[in-house]
Amino acid sequence: MDLTDFFSRDAYARLTGIRMIDVGQGTARVSMKIREEHLNSHGTVHGGAIFTLADTAFALASNSHGIPAAAINASITYMKAAREGELFADAGEFAENPKLATYVVTVTDDSGDRIALFQGMVYRKPKRDLVN
Amino acid sequence: MDLTDFFSRDAYARLTGIRMIDVGQGTARVSMKIREEHLNSHGTVHGGAIFTLADTAFALASNSHGIPAAAINASITYMKAAREGELFADAGEFAENPKLATYVVTVTDDSGDRIALFQGMVYRKPKRDLVN
Amino acid sequence: MDLTDFFSRDAYARLTGIRMIDVGQGTARVSMKIREEHLNSHGTVHGGAIFTLADTAFALASNSHGIPAAAINASITYMKAAREGELFADAGEFAENPKLATYVVTVTDDSGDRIALFQGMVYRKPKRDLVN
Amino acid sequence: MDLTDFFSRDAYARLTGIRMIDVGQGTARVSMKIREEHLNSHGTVHGGAIFTLADTAFALASNSHGIPAAAINASITYMKAAREGELFADAGEFAENPKLATYVVTVTDDSGDRIALFQGMVYRKPKRDLVN
Repeated sequence: MDLTDFFSRDAYARLTGIRMIDVGQGTARVSMKIREEHLNSHGTVHGGAIFTLADTAFALASNSHGIPAAAINASITYMKAAREGELFADAGEFAENPKLATYVVTVTDDSGDRIALFQGMVYRKPKRDLVN
Repeated sequence: MDLTDFFSRDAYARLTGIRMIDVGQGTARVSMKIREEHLNSHGTVHGGAIFTLADTAFALASNSHGIPAAAINASITYMKAAREGELFADAGEFAENPKLATYVVTVTDDSGDRIALFQGMVYRKPKRDLVN
Repeated sequence: MDLTDFFSRDAYARLTGIRMIDVGQGTARVSMKIREEHLNSHGTVHGGAIFTLADTAFALASNSHGIPAAAINASITYMKAAREGELFADAGEFAENPKLATYVVTVTDDSGDRIALFQGMVYRKPKRDLVN
Repeated sequence: MDLTDFFSRDAYARLTGIRMIDVGQGTARVSMKIREEHLNSHGTVHGGAIFTLADTAFALASNSHGIPAAAINASITYMKAAREGELFADAGEFAENPKLATYVVTVTDDSGDRIALFQGMVYRKPKRDLVN
């Protein structure tokens, strides 16, 4: 699978302003420049935007082996509010077997401070789209 | 807290096209009409968009008591891929104490099928913005 | 699958003093009388004991269809410390497809207060023991 | 806080046969020799026993600063079933602020294979026992 092409078809990542920096076997790094439109009612980056950034790194890393992978669940813990600058998400493969694999994604800001910790699991299946 | 005003300041929910339907004490219902821009590389609604929908219901429900609540973590499980139509997220308060509270959000499509199950925890604090 | 027999082979549930109360299609109720040996260093019921109680209800509910189900992940949120009396865990099926299913378990004490909320996912497979 | 003393008061860890190997500032390593009594109905180590092992490392690491810490939630992902030998859990502090902190625990077997990934959050409070 060509991951640049794969990423270019991700409309919600594009809407959110996410940029793909790097992808390897089971890894990915993406970033997002914080803009007004990412903020929530408290004036900090929306949990959904941080999740989407992490989830996009997770999707790239988990699809990097060329076998379509569908997210089955994910969790996120928020450490620090973000307001400006750029956020980065780095995904790595923690464990995998032929059907199921687990990824860990760390979200940091441009000072290197940890913003969030994300963990996601995928199911790899022959037919597409069992779950999103 | 006026929750209509609170919601109107949520820029990322607006970017995502989320509509507030109803808010009560510890509850909220929001919706999102699926558009091209919500899709991921597989052509189904992006996990981040589904999370953002659920997270927005969670934010409304958890801020409905008038005390600012900051999300500290959340998890989501995906049951079924969505491609078109409208999605709904219904948040309810599962448990709370003066500092910490847990919310459960169910995401359904317009046939009533379950799309995702979300759970989130907030911390209520005197000072704002400890975490996003 | 005979679930009474299935439960009788669960050695760690027995060590923990868990009792099976009821099992249905996709549901289960178990209980645990709090004893000294369930406590942690703070003198309250150990998170591991509460998890084990919930996980046992989850195992019964997810194996109730007669197809071996292996837990792939689980999360637990604690609401209230428990010190004495009896705890109950009630599991229900939230969603399922032929391969993956999600269960929600509520742990309550003998006053009916919510102690914990547990959520778990299983994978159903032809061959046994991919994961525990 | 003397963590050897703290650990010696953990009755459920003792019932489960957990041994404390090492504790540092924000870190802990514990182990469990697999015995018949740790098995579930499928004949593999019970998810509750693996969780309890990880949770005990988490409790030691999160209480290592001398301020009582109460677990508020935790998640676990299982990678591989275990049947015999010894399991190890290594906890580390991922992030903390004065009230909330996040720990990651990796469970491995005696060949170094990953068995489970655990993540937990604590709340540090002046008064004891808000949650277990």
